[in-house]
Amino acid sequence: MPKPLDLDGDVVDLLRALVDIESVSGDEGVIADQIEGALQPYEHLEVIRDGNVVIARTQLARAERVVIAGHLDTVPIAGNVPSWVTGAGRERIVRGRGSCDMKGGVAVQLSAAAALERPSRDVTWIFYDNEEVEESRNGLNRIAREHPHYLVGSFAVLCEPSNAGIEGGCQGTMRLIVELAGVAAHSARSWKGHNAIHDAGAALQLLTRYQPREIEVDGLLYHEGLNAVRITGGIAGNVIPDRCEIEVNYRFAPDKSPAQAETYLREVFAGFSVRVTDVAAGARPGLDQPAAAEFLAAVGGRASAKFGWTDVARFAAMGVPAVNFGPGDPNKAHADDEFCPAADVYSCRDALLRWLS
Amino acid sequence: MPKPLDLDGDVVDLLRALVDIESVSGDEGVIADQIEGALQPYEHLEVIRDGNVVIARTQLARAERVVIAGHLDTVPIAGNVPSWVTGAGRERIVRGRGSCDMKGGVAVQLSAAAALERPSRDVTWIFYDNEEVEESRNGLNRIAREHPHYLVGSFAVLCEPSNAGIEGGCQGTMRLIVELAGVAAHSARSWKGHNAIHDAGAALQLLTRYQPREIEVDGLLYHEGLNAVRITGGIAGNVIPDRCEIEVNYRFAPDKSPAQAETYLREVFAGFSVRVTDVAAGARPGLDQPAAAEFLAAVGGRASAKFGWTDVARFAAMGVPAVNFGPGDPNKAHADDEFCPAADVYSCRDALLRWLS
Repeated sequence: MPKPLDLDGDVVDLLRALVDIESVSGDEGVIADQIEGALQPYEHLEVIRDGNVVIARTQLARAERVVIAGHLDTVPIAGNVPSWVTGAGRERIVRGRGSCDMKGGVAVQLSAAAALERPSRDVTWIFYDNEEVEESRNGLNRIAREHPHYLVGSFAVLCEPSNAGIEGGCQGTMRLIVELAGVAAHSARSWKGHNAIHDAGAALQLLTRYQPREIEVDGLLYHEGLNAVRITGGIAGNVIPDRCEIEVNYRFAPDKSPAQAETYLREVFAGFSVRVTDVAAGARPGLDQPAAAEFLAAVGGRASAKFGWTDVARFAAMGVPAVNFGPGDPNKAHADDEFCPAADVYSCRDALLRWLS
Repeated sequence: MPKPLDLDGDVVDLLRALVDIESVSGDEGVIADQIEGALQPYEHLEVIRDGNVVIARTQLARAERVVIAGHLDTVPIAGNVPSWVTGAGRERIVRGRGSCDMKGGVAVQLSAAAALERPSRDVTWIFYDNEEVEESRNGLNRIAREHPHYLVGSFAVLCEPSNAGIEGGCQGTMRLIVELAGVAAHSARSWKGHNAIHDAGAALQLLTRYQPREIEVDGLLYHEGLNAVRITGGIAGNVIPDRCEIEVNYRFAPDKSPAQAETYLREVFAGFSVRVTDVAAGARPGLDQPAAAEFLAAVGGRASAKFGWTDVARFAAMGVPAVNFGPGDPNKAHADDEFCPAADVYSCRDALLRWLS
């Protein structure tokens, strides 16, 4: 067992201790045990354990309740655990798997949860598993299905990396397969067959010519993307391939519903056989709503658009306005050289304390 | 173990028994064992086993020796083993993987090898492995390198499917990889990366626009082909792919050398990164040579051009004139619905007996 987490000490030391507990998706048992054990002694918190989800909440009967959530899992380790530090003082950088996505955010949550004995709003702190894998395994998704009352609040903050700034909403994501069918033949007599891989050329040209839309939604600028993420075709070096599949990922701004996104893609790929395999709705930034505006004012700074899909959309679907706000550069999420600046961690912790004191 | 092969019975039953022994390239051990065991009892044959190559030869000190060869392997099974039969009597059609390419030919070889106790020419019967895969694994190639004396003869017949007619020469074949390189990025921020799969579109369009050449060589008409036979790219559903590879197969008429073929392909794919992975020279038909002319006269009929690459070229490279002559329609080789007419099997067997009695 690692040594117990110290929630009252330096939040950057806490981040390092969290990185040092490996917690690749599906393997969050140890880190959930540690977090549950560390929160248990605080009498202002009611601690609930459900699978590898840990929830801690105040019960002060405040007029308002907010939800502050973060996931415990990381993408696979790449020789980058345990953590290490470069630089000194406020210039320190914590490096290692999960430092950016998103143990920096989790450290901020834990440190603030311990410190805020009598917050101005009731707070539900949520730590959940399996965010980096398929939707069906997502711990927050499971809680929303089995215990939706745990997620009730007037506003939610997801501590995903956002350079310690507020990122509103998130783009939707859709995956589809473009299927090309041909007729197999020996490649020495290719005119007897029809080459499915050759037909993929026209679909790829559509993607190459595609001009991504940039669009403002509720005051924030979103930048879409339409990309082949996988292609596969052919069965042998001497057979004209009768099958080729292109997997395409569409990231769409939150002014489009999943149905509208699908209609659009079917227009783009008119004449091709297309099969949608996965979709997750986006979330409008909702920064015009009062709870969000108050958070914005308390934290300061300007909001920007979130490009990646995050669980913000899950709250939005339940009618809870939500934003991303956490330490670390989202461009470094999943990178083998991911890192988190100590300054971001301190500034996010300070902002939460300011907002909730 | 399957039941022993009966070389003295009906040659079409023998074909069915051969189809029923799965022998995808690399997995020819069982069929080679069966063939070795079936040939062993015939005292007029000296049987040699070398890896999964089986050789049986007469040693009658005839003035002339001919080589009659066939491969034991098939392309992958596609739910088409065991064999089945449609039609009745001489109209019977044997169906299933390998029936056409080329267990029909192997059945003819085995039946004739058993029957021809005192052939007019000494005969070397060769059954070899790994013809359907890369050149470096080819069993006949290995024998040519390690025991070239086994292949000595004044003339060679390869029992590849040729509609029971004589097909002269063969086209050359070259494989190359077109490599596309990009820059990986999260697909939610695709503009940070460069999509290697999208770049493949332009290479595929070149292939779609390619006009195959038809050319007469030594009186026979050859028809070239340039085809993508495999494509692969992408590592995850949310990552812009930094790599895509297209495997291309070029079939070229025997008037071109491998070097000329490569020069031509580098012109076609100018601007792309290209790597040649495999090449086999073609063979001019050579029907003007005396040994070929005698076989033509004994068998009857007109010769035509062979499109597929066959090991005829390997004999041609050793200075042994060679032709293709076997049951089954070469257009059905590798097709999931491949088949072999019983009539072709009987007529090829009869022709060999006529020629060698």
